[in-house]
Amino acid sequence: MATYAIGLDFGTNSCRSLIVNISNGEELASHVFNYPSGEAGVIVDPANPHLARQNPADYVIGIEVTIKEGIKEARKNDSKFKPENIIGIGVDTTGSSPMPVDYDGRPLCFSNKFKNNPSAMVWLWKDHTAYAEAEKITNLAAKQRPEYLAKIGGVYSSEWFWSKILHLQKENPEVFDTAYSFVEICDWIPAVLTGVTNPDKIKRSVCAAGHKAMYNDGWGGLPDEEFLNELSPKLGKVRNSLYQKAYPAEEKIGNLSKEWADKLGLSTNVAVAVGAFDAHMGAVGAGVTTGTLVKILGTSTCDIMIWPNKESIADIPGVCGIVDGSVLGGFYGIEAGQSAVGDIFLWFVNHLVPEKYGKTQEEKFKNLESAAEKLAPGETGLLALDWNNGNRTILVDVRLTGLLLGQTLHTQPHEIYRALVESTAFGALAIIDRIESNGVKINEIVNCGGLAIKNAMLMQIYADITGRPMKVSRSEQTPALGAAMFGAVSAGKEISGYANISEAQKAMTGVSKVYEPIQKNHEVYKKLYALYMQLHDGFGTKSGAGNMYNVMKDLLTIRDSIREGKA
Amino acid sequence: MATYAIGLDFGTNSCRSLIVNISNGEELASHVFNYPSGEAGVIVDPANPHLARQNPADYVIGIEVTIKEGIKEARKNDSKFKPENIIGIGVDTTGSSPMPVDYDGRPLCFSNKFKNNPSAMVWLWKDHTAYAEAEKITNLAAKQRPEYLAKIGGVYSSEWFWSKILHLQKENPEVFDTAYSFVEICDWIPAVLTGVTNPDKIKRSVCAAGHKAMYNDGWGGLPDEEFLNELSPKLGKVRNSLYQKAYPAEEKIGNLSKEWADKLGLSTNVAVAVGAFDAHMGAVGAGVTTGTLVKILGTSTCDIMIWPNKESIADIPGVCGIVDGSVLGGFYGIEAGQSAVGDIFLWFVNHLVPEKYGKTQEEKFKNLESAAEKLAPGETGLLALDWNNGNRTILVDVRLTGLLLGQTLHTQPHEIYRALVESTAFGALAIIDRIESNGVKINEIVNCGGLAIKNAMLMQIYADITGRPMKVSRSEQTPALGAAMFGAVSAGKEISGYANISEAQKAMTGVSKVYEPIQKNHEVYKKLYALYMQLHDGFGTKSGAGNMYNVMKDLLTIRDSIREGKA
Repeated sequence: MATYAIGLDFGTNSCRSLIVNISNGEELASHVFNYPSGEAGVIVDPANPHLARQNPADYVIGIEVTIKEGIKEARKNDSKFKPENIIGIGVDTTGSSPMPVDYDGRPLCFSNKFKNNPSAMVWLWKDHTAYAEAEKITNLAAKQRPEYLAKIGGVYSSEWFWSKILHLQKENPEVFDTAYSFVEICDWIPAVLTGVTNPDKIKRSVCAAGHKAMYNDGWGGLPDEEFLNELSPKLGKVRNSLYQKAYPAEEKIGNLSKEWADKLGLSTNVAVAVGAFDAHMGAVGAGVTTGTLVKILGTSTCDIMIWPNKESIADIPGVCGIVDGSVLGGFYGIEAGQSAVGDIFLWFVNHLVPEKYGKTQEEKFKNLESAAEKLAPGETGLLALDWNNGNRTILVDVRLTGLLLGQTLHTQPHEIYRALVESTAFGALAIIDRIESNGVKINEIVNCGGLAIKNAMLMQIYADITGRPMKVSRSEQTPALGAAMFGAVSAGKEISGYANISEAQKAMTGVSKVYEPIQKNHEVYKKLYALYMQLHDGFGTKSGAGNMYNVMKDLLTIRDSIREGKA
Repeated sequence: MATYAIGLDFGTNSCRSLIVNISNGEELASHVFNYPSGEAGVIVDPANPHLARQNPADYVIGIEVTIKEGIKEARKNDSKFKPENIIGIGVDTTGSSPMPVDYDGRPLCFSNKFKNNPSAMVWLWKDHTAYAEAEKITNLAAKQRPEYLAKIGGVYSSEWFWSKILHLQKENPEVFDTAYSFVEICDWIPAVLTGVTNPDKIKRSVCAAGHKAMYNDGWGGLPDEEFLNELSPKLGKVRNSLYQKAYPAEEKIGNLSKEWADKLGLSTNVAVAVGAFDAHMGAVGAGVTTGTLVKILGTSTCDIMIWPNKESIADIPGVCGIVDGSVLGGFYGIEAGQSAVGDIFLWFVNHLVPEKYGKTQEEKFKNLESAAEKLAPGETGLLALDWNNGNRTILVDVRLTGLLLGQTLHTQPHEIYRALVESTAFGALAIIDRIESNGVKINEIVNCGGLAIKNAMLMQIYADITGRPMKVSRSEQTPALGAAMFGAVSAGKEISGYANISEAQKAMTGVSKVYEPIQKNHEVYKKLYALYMQLHDGFGTKSGAGNMYNVMKDLLTIRDSIREGKA
């Protein structure tokens, strides 16, 4: 008898259910629900471009719609499928996306008093209103608690938990004071499903806690009260409304509540797993294991690895986070990333590509790509830095900007497009080099996310630039697949047949395609990468490369030799 | 009784006549003739993007059409105008644009043998087929005749006379061997008008000779035979088919021939002046005098000054040429320039501006400008280098390329457009600083050419960046006006009333508009210029600035302070 699990994936604009056959990872059905609130699910403020909030009511409707519709589809697709054979639900979300809640775990924006008040909603991961608070936290930690910074690459982000809570206090003191506690949505949604939402009782995710709230068992959990009080006298109190202990996502948080079981047509035996962030569960769905780098390629990029926590691991300068159990229990989760990848291409296509490449964004991308893939490495004479949105890893610096170099009076948009793709690959290689040079060996790279699936030219360029095979994950929905796997495993071995996630991965994950590096291209890219690193260090570090005289000339020499070779 | 002169201006795509009242510079009529040959007057080769030739037959037709039509218009515009009161004709052309001719001064492409053969046509200024020969000449001169290079800024160009002649020998030895001599078109067209075209008898322009053929009385005229023979055994012979002495454009070459006088309805008393290049005559038409920098702003830029030849002048490193008499007799002509200005804007608009800015090139420019002029200096956070076509002055390096820095995910095309305009102004200031720091004081700047007349935003930015008033020449056709002035003066004082060009300038030239620098903007631009020069020296010189770490951050700081001040 086949059994199934449901993965629920809560993104920026929509949420998705995925119904998976536990024995082999077969994806029976998937349903997407677009959030009805705000602009494509995001509450914005025309007067403040940094603000990005979400209405948690959208998640509640989303659970019901996506699971019910998913079940309908699964029935259609497989006549043997029975909803009563669903054994677990896992949840992944964006993050850090905290919100203020009352004693019952009810979002404050559900109350009449704070209805439609963005301060009382979910502070979406990409809300940057707290940039000043982030700097304050970084500066104080640098002085008083350097160990906090060592685990997060050196800089606390405006996207993260404490920055946002601290900014709320300034933005709306009344909401801040009214809140009984603050909950990440990856903790709140599983709590809603089990019906236990009192903040004191919610089993919180170590993924969110460790990567975004500076939680670490090594220093007794969350940052200490003294440190928080120095940021704001009321912040120490917030600490006490949170948690002493955080849990990996293999843990079961509880069973589906009677209310939700009835609503969804499922049994109350369904296990609900501790939640986690999309990238971390996505890495599991992509088959992450020791030595595997999983790259989730989207508007920005998330790089995830794991490392046995029995072995020692050094802090890796510039890498966003190393957190015990954040991906899998028994392993450190290592998180790195690029602040913008797909977003750079979108910026370019939306602003700087004329209609001769097509009328729609899609047409423009298609034509840019077919023209760009005919170019040889080095042929454009162009070199770019992928810093239009700063550099998350390894420089951890939002005050860096884009650079394009080598343009002549004949440079074409598709040449620039190729240079931008290459720049993101060089950025990816810089991260790989940084991780490996700190003792964490990378044996394979598995890619997932929209760009990995859709953009063959990009994947080949990544293979050619890194000199490594680029594998593409079999599942196109790795976060939801990972969530479903956690849901299944949290039900226990007797029910799921899996003692842990590693066993589930062997059966449920795989690779659909491999892009092998082309040696000839790699040789050219080695030269370009050296120039990229010269710019990278020259513009990105205080101690870096000096005179830039050679850069343009070397590029032209490379370009000319490529063009001659082609002629 | 009013007297008149005709200026004939031979450009890249068309030629123009201008009929001018000698007493006050009033422009009675102007007629443009588009060259019928090739693509917009330029013979190109799809297989070789460096090739750009012209058919000299177009000039001959152009003389007749533009003068006849000009006279018709002048009659219409002024009932007192009489063609018999035309006293002189002056000619300016592009250059260096040499062509091979036979003993009679007939272009070889007029013969049946070499008809339609691009090698036998005019080698237009922007023909770059001779880049390898240019390098050869530079290298040999650096070793054996450093004095040659000192007067031309250090590098001999592929656009210049000897490079082209040398390349012709390789490109088509038969044409090379058949040629009796080689003539710049600024020498050939006046010769045609006087009917004396035998190369031995043509009075050649010191402007063309000095700036492009390394002619200098200081070393006995043209480069010596030994030097030329080392470049190619046949090149020494070419020297002997050329000239011992070259002349400034105030000199009369002769009178209009009977044939042309009849054809045009003019008298054979009309004086024809020695020809010169457009920029140099344009400077005269713009009122150049000691201490005046004339900027001719077009697709590229030419900067012209003069300096009394009684006073000593140092070689100015990186300045294209210092030639006695090239603008006016009794003065050194100083020529500098930027390899691309309008061409950079054209490149950007033609390739990287989407249709939301307009359907046509003209609409796009208009909308970019109206959006860009609302921006404050420093507000874009962008900085560019104006090197898409290399750097002519002061680095004299074609192997330099463009650079754009500071872009985010929100950067808009009109912001980039403004940054590109600013980059050309920074480049202009770098030239001003270089000239002044070598002892040539600049008291005023007069601008002419299309961009000066049409682009008010650009002119204001130039004023703000340089911190100097930008005057705009009254005449919109300064090269043709200058040519007409030379035509008039060459007729002699008794006829024209002017003993020399300086006297003519006082009566015939003027300024129509002055853009005053705005101090507040200048203060911001001083900071941006320092960053520009950091990039300029870092990427453009071997000894220049080192680490670039500050560049992006300083730009963001400037941008943020400007944005705050505006909010």
